[in-house]
Amino acid sequence: MAQIAFIGLGNMGAPMASNLIKAGHRLKIFDLNPAALTALTAQGATSTQQASDAVQDAEFIISMLPSGLHVESLYLGKTALLKEINSNALIIDSSTIDAETARKVAAAATTQETAFIDAPVSGGTTGAEKGTLSFMVGGEKAHYERSLPILKNMGTHIFHAGDTGCGQVAKMCNNMLLAIQMTGTAEALSLAIRNGLSPETVSDIMLQSSGRNWSLEVYNPVPGVMDNAPASRNYQGGFMVNLMLKDLKLALDAAATSGASTPMGALARNLYSLHTDQADNNGQLDFSSIFQLYNRKHQ
Amino acid sequence: MAQIAFIGLGNMGAPMASNLIKAGHRLKIFDLNPAALTALTAQGATSTQQASDAVQDAEFIISMLPSGLHVESLYLGKTALLKEINSNALIIDSSTIDAETARKVAAAATTQETAFIDAPVSGGTTGAEKGTLSFMVGGEKAHYERSLPILKNMGTHIFHAGDTGCGQVAKMCNNMLLAIQMTGTAEALSLAIRNGLSPETVSDIMLQSSGRNWSLEVYNPVPGVMDNAPASRNYQGGFMVNLMLKDLKLALDAAATSGASTPMGALARNLYSLHTDQADNNGQLDFSSIFQLYNRKHQ
Amino acid sequence: MAQIAFIGLGNMGAPMASNLIKAGHRLKIFDLNPAALTALTAQGATSTQQASDAVQDAEFIISMLPSGLHVESLYLGKTALLKEINSNALIIDSSTIDAETARKVAAAATTQETAFIDAPVSGGTTGAEKGTLSFMVGGEKAHYERSLPILKNMGTHIFHAGDTGCGQVAKMCNNMLLAIQMTGTAEALSLAIRNGLSPETVSDIMLQSSGRNWSLEVYNPVPGVMDNAPASRNYQGGFMVNLMLKDLKLALDAAATSGASTPMGALARNLYSLHTDQADNNGQLDFSSIFQLYNRKHQ
Amino acid sequence: MAQIAFIGLGNMGAPMASNLIKAGHRLKIFDLNPAALTALTAQGATSTQQASDAVQDAEFIISMLPSGLHVESLYLGKTALLKEINSNALIIDSSTIDAETARKVAAAATTQETAFIDAPVSGGTTGAEKGTLSFMVGGEKAHYERSLPILKNMGTHIFHAGDTGCGQVAKMCNNMLLAIQMTGTAEALSLAIRNGLSPETVSDIMLQSSGRNWSLEVYNPVPGVMDNAPASRNYQGGFMVNLMLKDLKLALDAAATSGASTPMGALARNLYSLHTDQADNNGQLDFSSIFQLYNRKHQ
Repeated sequence: MAQIAFIGLGNMGAPMASNLIKAGHRLKIFDLNPAALTALTAQGATSTQQASDAVQDAEFIISMLPSGLHVESLYLGKTALLKEINSNALIIDSSTIDAETARKVAAAATTQETAFIDAPVSGGTTGAEKGTLSFMVGGEKAHYERSLPILKNMGTHIFHAGDTGCGQVAKMCNNMLLAIQMTGTAEALSLAIRNGLSPETVSDIMLQSSGRNWSLEVYNPVPGVMDNAPASRNYQGGFMVNLMLKDLKLALDAAATSGASTPMGALARNLYSLHTDQADNNGQLDFSSIFQLYNRKHQ
Repeated sequence: MAQIAFIGLGNMGAPMASNLIKAGHRLKIFDLNPAALTALTAQGATSTQQASDAVQDAEFIISMLPSGLHVESLYLGKTALLKEINSNALIIDSSTIDAETARKVAAAATTQETAFIDAPVSGGTTGAEKGTLSFMVGGEKAHYERSLPILKNMGTHIFHAGDTGCGQVAKMCNNMLLAIQMTGTAEALSLAIRNGLSPETVSDIMLQSSGRNWSLEVYNPVPGVMDNAPASRNYQGGFMVNLMLKDLKLALDAAATSGASTPMGALARNLYSLHTDQADNNGQLDFSSIFQLYNRKHQ
Repeated sequence: MAQIAFIGLGNMGAPMASNLIKAGHRLKIFDLNPAALTALTAQGATSTQQASDAVQDAEFIISMLPSGLHVESLYLGKTALLKEINSNALIIDSSTIDAETARKVAAAATTQETAFIDAPVSGGTTGAEKGTLSFMVGGEKAHYERSLPILKNMGTHIFHAGDTGCGQVAKMCNNMLLAIQMTGTAEALSLAIRNGLSPETVSDIMLQSSGRNWSLEVYNPVPGVMDNAPASRNYQGGFMVNLMLKDLKLALDAAATSGASTPMGALARNLYSLHTDQADNNGQLDFSSIFQLYNRKHQ
Repeated sequence: MAQIAFIGLGNMGAPMASNLIKAGHRLKIFDLNPAALTALTAQGATSTQQASDAVQDAEFIISMLPSGLHVESLYLGKTALLKEINSNALIIDSSTIDAETARKVAAAATTQETAFIDAPVSGGTTGAEKGTLSFMVGGEKAHYERSLPILKNMGTHIFHAGDTGCGQVAKMCNNMLLAIQMTGTAEALSLAIRNGLSPETVSDIMLQSSGRNWSLEVYNPVPGVMDNAPASRNYQGGFMVNLMLKDLKLALDAAATSGASTPMGALARNLYSLHTDQADNNGQLDFSSIFQLYNRKHQ
């Protein structure tokens, strides 16, 4: 069992840390919000007053923060946490951030011979709780392999995407494609419904045809078609529109920087943005609620 | 075994008719191009000089024509074929056309108490040859069931989409979604490649994640990723860009007529159109060649 | 002064006919709706029971109908009005329709040596009333010149766009560009407002810079910026969203048929379509109301 | 006449500085590239070895740099130029950068009671040479007025857009609208040409109709329509595609940050990006060359 520092215990970080404790690891935890520490302390974690306390003697440092600015600030900013970390430790940043910042922190880690991988996740809070997350890892193959015994306590699919930053790129590409497909699925279903088909029937046909995608398989955006999908519980739970907008911004920024063209991804982002502009709480709905933008009058 | 009239023996119709002959049915065939009749006559079909000869005594009339104008002209135009057809026969139109024309011909058939279903297919020439097409049927449930023994000789999935015209709607919705997903997949892969990932790795990751779709499963648009995909044989064979443009036009026309919004489908159509404008023969390439629009300089 | 048959006396046709009467011409008028005839009869027009009565002895036949189907039906359908028209008369179709139908009717007119021009208008009901319409004429130069004395009684700009059908093409191109610019203007103003600029100031700056367009000059979409614009009277009056959607459908159909790519025009159409889906009466609002789609929560 | 420090003497900065010298001002100049200083020294400017030398005794400090990173680095970075500047001087940053950085530098200036305005320009190198630039100024009204005598030596339109950062916002909104209109104009002209109209005629019609915009007035994108437009000299000179892409990135970043929806602007950016991907030097062409993306086969 390993000595692990876990920094950032929000909706995702807390259940991830909990799964590590259940697996028998020794955790020192830190979060700017002290309330986030209490539940995990009850489970056996050691809470600390500052990040630098958490990383002492840690074999693995896992961070789960909301943005690239937070990650850069943690490791390279005033606290300069990087300097407190043993050179034989492995840093695993599971935050979803831009690849550039991931590469910047990784480069700084390399200069002091500390190993760093970017390892953003997909699977949402449900996946975090059940330990069924997917991890997309960027960094050296050896570091990836070293992380496997730890990451497997929190997830089922652990992919090695490539060099540093590639974990972030893989996640943003996947989520951009997801947004395109969800929007396209909502659109195709809306077209079918207005032309006399039942959403159940056309969903079933497309699922067995070349229109098949993950949304049709497990996440149908039309209320009532799938009992377990967010669409059937007023788009509550699931993956929030505002988080999808955040991921799309990361993808579109990477596209602009690398000279890639992403007309479909850019349009999907703007449809989500228009969606959030139509009612106050749309940003908090599950992202399959984009179906409403196409069918406000038909709800 | 049934007496069948088969009208329209092009790239799709000819192998479909061939499979019916192999299954033991008696076929009378007609096509404006006499050359199309020869091969099938050798297989046992009876060629006719005009469509009205083919439909005499037919229990099933199957038509496979290039457009709604052709279908309307055949059944309701000068030849007025509809009047030559027994009222106890079943007309199966497998052409891909607009739902409006399908409904118009069906209504005319109903006034003379002849059964009509629209039954467009997907699966391409390969599916037509192997007898693995999908049929999307619009019309009365009883007519659908009556068609099953015949359609099963040509396809593996026979869907009942709803009332008359719904077969056409189901197909155009599926293909619009397919175009959106293929374009989105090409875009996501292009973004990944420009940011340092290998197309094989990121395809594999997305295939096991929420970005999963039919293109990633069997039809990867990046040359070399899948041996059997058109992308790996210079985008030859498969489903032509020009045919995808035809299907997208049907979907977008239906959207405009029914007041549906299809921003993603409309953008996909225009990306395909821009693609055909970049080189003379792009319209004849497989539709996964949209990847080239994003990566001309990187080929 | 000329003998004129005027067919189609709706919101546009009635004031256009009225201006011809005021100019001293002799009018025989026809409309399927008898109520439309009363007011003009009071002004001196001769109402007729059927279109064929109106065209007897006419030197000019002007039609103003809602769609290509209506125009084709009038001239070539059961009534076969074309055969009733003197070969030395000039037919002026001012309906906004597809170029293909215009060319079809023109070709039929040519076979009987009757002159035909397509002459759709812009300027709305206000322009029709004030006699300040623009006419975009397709047809032979000589026919165009022959129409000038008549059209000048109804409009101020009379353009010769080219051969038959070119009047329709010119109008649909102009209106597609108008939709793109209005949508883009609403978008730029919305971006400015959310980043701290007043709509008046940024409108003024763009009007004097390279962002200048007709919307900024006379038709600002933000309520309150221009006293006389529809935006300042709850988007009442002006050019209805539903009519813009009709014109965009004509343009996008022409694009698909001619192999042109119109991604911006297609997106504008879909934004207007999404707009009509957000509230019941949006289709009846002036087309500058697209600003609301971007700013529902900020109204 | 004033004592002015001018920092950043590239394609834009050099001719702007030259106009200030001609107007009689005393200039101390600095650029990282010493070659940029020679020509201006010959005109009477005093070249300096570092920025801090240039600002000594300066009443106005004008900076013209390529990005927000450069501006922040100059004033707040290692050189900390801000601390070298007299509190009674006025800083005029004419770089085109994000509003956030402009506000950050302005705030730092305010803490030491130095006046700062953001004053990006439009008009290109031609406007810089002729002294006909437009300046869009963000900052206090008093600072704006104080800048007028100086800016009028370099430009003809000096707008006060609002508080700090608003100059940048005004420029990005204008240029996003410009990109939308240029793309839409190219699209409308392409549609017209493919349907039989001459580009001259349809341009003339739209120019006098509601499709009117700056591009049609002075910058027609079709080769040969306007003798003086870049389109008629192989899209050489003018405003480069790569610079438009830079401005669109600023606008789209501001949209994402402020929650604004810009579907048309995002699509325009992606069409420009696809354009640059079709041939190696497209990024160096004038931005009206987007017409080529629509008409590669028709050139």
